[in-house]
Amino acid sequence: MIERLAIIGVGLIGGSVSLALRESQSVGKVVGCGRSEENLVRAKQLGIVDSYTHDPAEAVEGADMVLLAVPLGAMQGTLSRIRDHLPPDAVVTDAGSVKGSVINDLQVVYGEVPEWFVPGHPIAGTERSGADAAFASLYRNRRVILTPTGETDTKALSRVEQMWRQCGAEITCMSVQHHDEILAATSHLPHMLAFSLVDSLARLKENDEIFRYAAGGFRDFTRIASSNPVMWRDICLANQEKLSTMLTRFADELHELAATLEAGDSEGLLQIFERAKQARDRYIDGVE
Amino acid sequence: MIERLAIIGVGLIGGSVSLALRESQSVGKVVGCGRSEENLVRAKQLGIVDSYTHDPAEAVEGADMVLLAVPLGAMQGTLSRIRDHLPPDAVVTDAGSVKGSVINDLQVVYGEVPEWFVPGHPIAGTERSGADAAFASLYRNRRVILTPTGETDTKALSRVEQMWRQCGAEITCMSVQHHDEILAATSHLPHMLAFSLVDSLARLKENDEIFRYAAGGFRDFTRIASSNPVMWRDICLANQEKLSTMLTRFADELHELAATLEAGDSEGLLQIFERAKQARDRYIDGVE
Repeated sequence: MIERLAIIGVGLIGGSVSLALRESQSVGKVVGCGRSEENLVRAKQLGIVDSYTHDPAEAVEGADMVLLAVPLGAMQGTLSRIRDHLPPDAVVTDAGSVKGSVINDLQVVYGEVPEWFVPGHPIAGTERSGADAAFASLYRNRRVILTPTGETDTKALSRVEQMWRQCGAEITCMSVQHHDEILAATSHLPHMLAFSLVDSLARLKENDEIFRYAAGGFRDFTRIASSNPVMWRDICLANQEKLSTMLTRFADELHELAATLEAGDSEGLLQIFERAKQARDRYIDGVE
Repeated sequence: MIERLAIIGVGLIGGSVSLALRESQSVGKVVGCGRSEENLVRAKQLGIVDSYTHDPAEAVEGADMVLLAVPLGAMQGTLSRIRDHLPPDAVVTDAGSVKGSVINDLQVVYGEVPEWFVPGHPIAGTERSGADAAFASLYRNRRVILTPTGETDTKALSRVEQMWRQCGAEITCMSVQHHDEILAATSHLPHMLAFSLVDSLARLKENDEIFRYAAGGFRDFTRIASSNPVMWRDICLANQEKLSTMLTRFADELHELAATLEAGDSEGLLQIFERAKQARDRYIDGVE
C-alpha cells in the first residue's frame, strides 16, 4: 500500500498509474505536479489526483512513493528540484523510455545513482497524451522493465515492483544498456520512421490529395506519428547513439531493398516479405 | 443490377464485393474462380459464390460483369485465358493496386486497351486474405479509384461505377500515372517499410526478446507486414519504377535524419515531429 504518491507529470503514463492503483485500492492520497494548470484541473476532475501543485519540491513532501513521468528532457531539472525535499523513506522511480539518460541525470544531480531510485519503463502507451488520455487498464498484462543498478536497494526495488503489479503489469529486470538497445529497435526506430514518412509526404506538393487516398493500413502504420513531438524529441536525443546507429543501418537496408526492386529480383522480395509476415504473425499476433 | 457476376480471385477483395452486392440486392448469380479448391468451397459455404470453377474461361461464360481480383502477377495470364470467351456485352474491371501494369498486360494480350475494360482500384483492405477474410462492409465509405483511358466506353465506365456505389464506395477517376504515384506514397512505400523493418528485427540474434517488448504502437505500425507476401511482391514489381524512386528518396531522408540526430539538433527533430503530427492529426484522424 502506498500512503502518499507524488506523480510529477500527470499525463497518459502518470495519470494511468494513479487510476490503476485507485482501482486496486493500493494507494491513499495522490498528489499531482505539472506545469499546465488546465491539465492539473482536469486531472482533479477525473479523480486522478487529490491535490496538485506546480512545484515538484512541494509535491514530494510526505510522499512514500514518487513517480517521475515527465519528458526525458525535463528529468534532470525535476531531480534537482526535489533533491533536498524528499522524505528519508521515499522511493523514487521514473517511467522514461530511455534509461541511460536517466542514470546520467542522476549522476549529474547526485554524483551517483541513489539506492532509493529505481529506474523503470512501462511498455505501454497510446499516441494520445495528457490527463484526459489516462485510463486504469493501460498497464494490464503489459510489461514493465526495471533497470536496477548495483546500488539499488532491494526493498526500494520490491516496492516499485509491487506498485506496477498492482497496476496489472508484469515485471522484467534487465540492464540499462540492454533496455536501451531493445527499445531503440521496437519503439524508437518505428516512431522515427512514422514521423519521417508522414513529414515526407506532407512536404510533397500534392499532399492534400495524397492523404485523401490513404487507407486503413496507412492509418495504422502512421498512428504513432500522432504522438507527442516534444516527448519524442527528448527520447531520440536521450537514446541518440543507439538510435542513430540503428537508423543508419535501416536506411542502408532500404537502399539495398530499392536495388533488389530495381533488379526485378522477385525471389529476393518474396523472401523478405515472407520472413516478415512469418515473424509478425508468430511474435505479434499472439499478444493482440 | 448485375445479372451474372464472375469473380476471378475470391479473396478479401473479390469476396467482399460479392457480399456487399448481395446485401444491396444488386446482383443475381455470382460465379467464383480460383486455384484453391479449399478457398472456393469456403466461399460457397459463406454464400459468397453460387457456383465455382477453376477455369477463368468457364467462369466468364454468360457474365455481364467480370471482376479480376487476382494478384497482379496473375493478371496477364487471366486476361489471356478469358480473351476468347467473354460475352459480347460483358464489362470487365479489376481491383489491382497498380494500374500501369494492368494497362501493359491489356496491351500485351489485346494489342490495345479494350473499350469494355475499366481499370479500377478500391482503396480498402485489411492485412488478412482469402474468402474467410471477406465482409460486406469493407467498401462502405471507402474510395474506389477508376482510371479509364481515352478508349474506355462511357457505358462500361458507368456500369462499373454503379457496381462500386452499390458496395457503398465513393468513386474518383484519375489518370493511370497519377494513381500509381499516389499509391506508391500512401500504400506501397509503407508496406515496404513495415515488411523491411520486421524482417530486419527478425534477423537480429536476440529477435525473440525484441518482439517480446514490442508495445501497441509497434503492433499497429507493423500490422501491414502481416499482408500477403505474394500479392505484395507482385505490387512492388508492378510499380517498380515509381516505388524504387520513392524508396531511395526515403532512405536518403533517413540518412539525413540520422545526421540530424547525431548532431544533437533538437530544433530540427522537433520540427519534423511537429509537422508530422500536425499532418497526421489533420488529414488522417478526420476519417478514422
